[in-house]
Amino acid sequence: MAIHRGSVWSDSAALVISTLASVVLMPVGATAQALADVQTPDTPLVLKAQGSFFIGGETVEQTKVQLGDLGPGGHITINQMYVRYMVPQGGEANVPVVMLHGATLTGKSWETTPDGRMGWDEYFVRKGHPVYVPDQVGRGRSGFNQAVLNDVRAGLATPDRLPPWLRFSDEGVWPNFRFGAKPGEPFADTQFPMAAIGELSKQAVPDPSFGFPQPNPNWKALADLAGQLKGAVLMGHSQSGSFPLEAALLNPTAAKGLVLVEPGRCPEYTAEQIKTLASVPTLVVFGDHRDTPTGLPTLPTWQQRFEMCQATTGRVRAAAGRAEMLAPPARGVR
Amino acid sequence: MAIHRGSVWSDSAALVISTLASVVLMPVGATAQALADVQTPDTPLVLKAQGSFFIGGETVEQTKVQLGDLGPGGHITINQMYVRYMVPQGGEANVPVVMLHGATLTGKSWETTPDGRMGWDEYFVRKGHPVYVPDQVGRGRSGFNQAVLNDVRAGLATPDRLPPWLRFSDEGVWPNFRFGAKPGEPFADTQFPMAAIGELSKQAVPDPSFGFPQPNPNWKALADLAGQLKGAVLMGHSQSGSFPLEAALLNPTAAKGLVLVEPGRCPEYTAEQIKTLASVPTLVVFGDHRDTPTGLPTLPTWQQRFEMCQATTGRVRAAAGRAEMLAPPARGVR
Repeated sequence: MAIHRGSVWSDSAALVISTLASVVLMPVGATAQALADVQTPDTPLVLKAQGSFFIGGETVEQTKVQLGDLGPGGHITINQMYVRYMVPQGGEANVPVVMLHGATLTGKSWETTPDGRMGWDEYFVRKGHPVYVPDQVGRGRSGFNQAVLNDVRAGLATPDRLPPWLRFSDEGVWPNFRFGAKPGEPFADTQFPMAAIGELSKQAVPDPSFGFPQPNPNWKALADLAGQLKGAVLMGHSQSGSFPLEAALLNPTAAKGLVLVEPGRCPEYTAEQIKTLASVPTLVVFGDHRDTPTGLPTLPTWQQRFEMCQATTGRVRAAAGRAEMLAPPARGVR
Repeated sequence: MAIHRGSVWSDSAALVISTLASVVLMPVGATAQALADVQTPDTPLVLKAQGSFFIGGETVEQTKVQLGDLGPGGHITINQMYVRYMVPQGGEANVPVVMLHGATLTGKSWETTPDGRMGWDEYFVRKGHPVYVPDQVGRGRSGFNQAVLNDVRAGLATPDRLPPWLRFSDEGVWPNFRFGAKPGEPFADTQFPMAAIGELSKQAVPDPSFGFPQPNPNWKALADLAGQLKGAVLMGHSQSGSFPLEAALLNPTAAKGLVLVEPGRCPEYTAEQIKTLASVPTLVVFGDHRDTPTGLPTLPTWQQRFEMCQATTGRVRAAAGRAEMLAPPARGVR
């Protein structure tokens, strides 16, 4: 991988990328995760700080019914984003990395793997980077706006007002996540620890964001988080793969680098937007078996997504920016 | 506080209780939480291990519609419990502490406080205890079963099939959490950092568990977690305050101690159940202003809950068990 070093590509960002390349190549185990299977590292993890906080949030007034009909009506907060963090001792001055998860998932994505290995969160902390792991607005510890659910329950709104709540079936993830073309038939060269697929299933939560208004509130939350961190590398995955681009457009000076892990799309930006994105180093990572039909015919295939991002990164480079595609299989590594 | 030491009251459990007493008396700050307000300890946190895993979960088959109508129907996992943990270096042999949160909240309850101070999770880790923080089944990173929501949306189920999704209004928490009898009028001696009340509001998520079938699936998950830990002190708060009792009834040998922080109820157990609970040391903690009307007239007041637990702990003691009430205000400390 050719990493261009220059005024816009800090050494810190380059370190994140080299750390990422190591993660992609980490060997996988073959045991199913349970508490007894969770692995313990050989050396302790020394943290300057750890904890959690929220970004954003709006105060809205809701009725007694909308609040579940137990207590009085009044105000609540919606659209806040929960963020958990770990700062390594001695690494507090290094560029922070924000890891945002994909569809039907939460920040758990970046923690202990389904087969009990260290998550990317701790891996990057051990490489010296402060790591910030949000739950997307509307999911996990960020909560969601329940008002319409309770209104429908009470007959005060029609059921078509409900958002769709998405989950992927265990069978559906085989072709979509490219473990194999058909459920139960893994590719001979799959890198996923198939014995732990049941543990992956437990990571899923209902995802209401397909019913979100645009712009997706996560874009601003991500940009605000980068700003409050006074600069960060922003990493998105799958559904959120393009969110770092959107956050960079909202706050380009706070985006020190963008890492798009198998983004679900690379939007067709205007020339002005591409010019802005050219100020931020960007890496787009895709894995193998991209031509597998996903079983989701209304969405692009992974190969189509790859080509969309090839086009976007090409435009960024043509605007004198730094944007690279990283496809480990094409380099002989899986 | 008289801590009885005996065959059922381990030194480790006593250490947890003394740690708890210190936490209750921790001074509070007065600043609102934001990333910039989050405090960093003076000394690093040295962890043997940290990460997350799931307890339990059931595989069920759902239709395309029930899964949100994007991908194919098939199987998913429901009723799993997400658990995040930290194990202190050198404390791995000490008794673990499980901290379960209350209504409309998640494990965030035990992390960084609304005004940016260290959470109870890290505080107990720094005192030498492995700490395990779940999200209750149906909330946060544990997810929930979305099938009925999508069925109602599609007109395949009637709206009355929806569970109530509870949240407390910002106004309602003043009397219910006893910050003051009325919103905006804190008690002169309140210990809550009122400037951070907006940050507390962000911790709330919709709570579907008032529609759960009985027995509440969290009871078994908590008992199973204690079993997999080969013994743990189980701490519940408010809504989940009685869950440690229920988990101890399911697996009394794995329950090394029970801490009930302002439990919403102390159930009327049978003589046989009380005999089982007498094998596990139990501490029940209540704060001040318990006679404040909660604004939730269908539920007991905090004073009524206090008296329920006085009765239960009295029965446990009469059965030769160890069960104590701790009310710091009655001891002249707030």
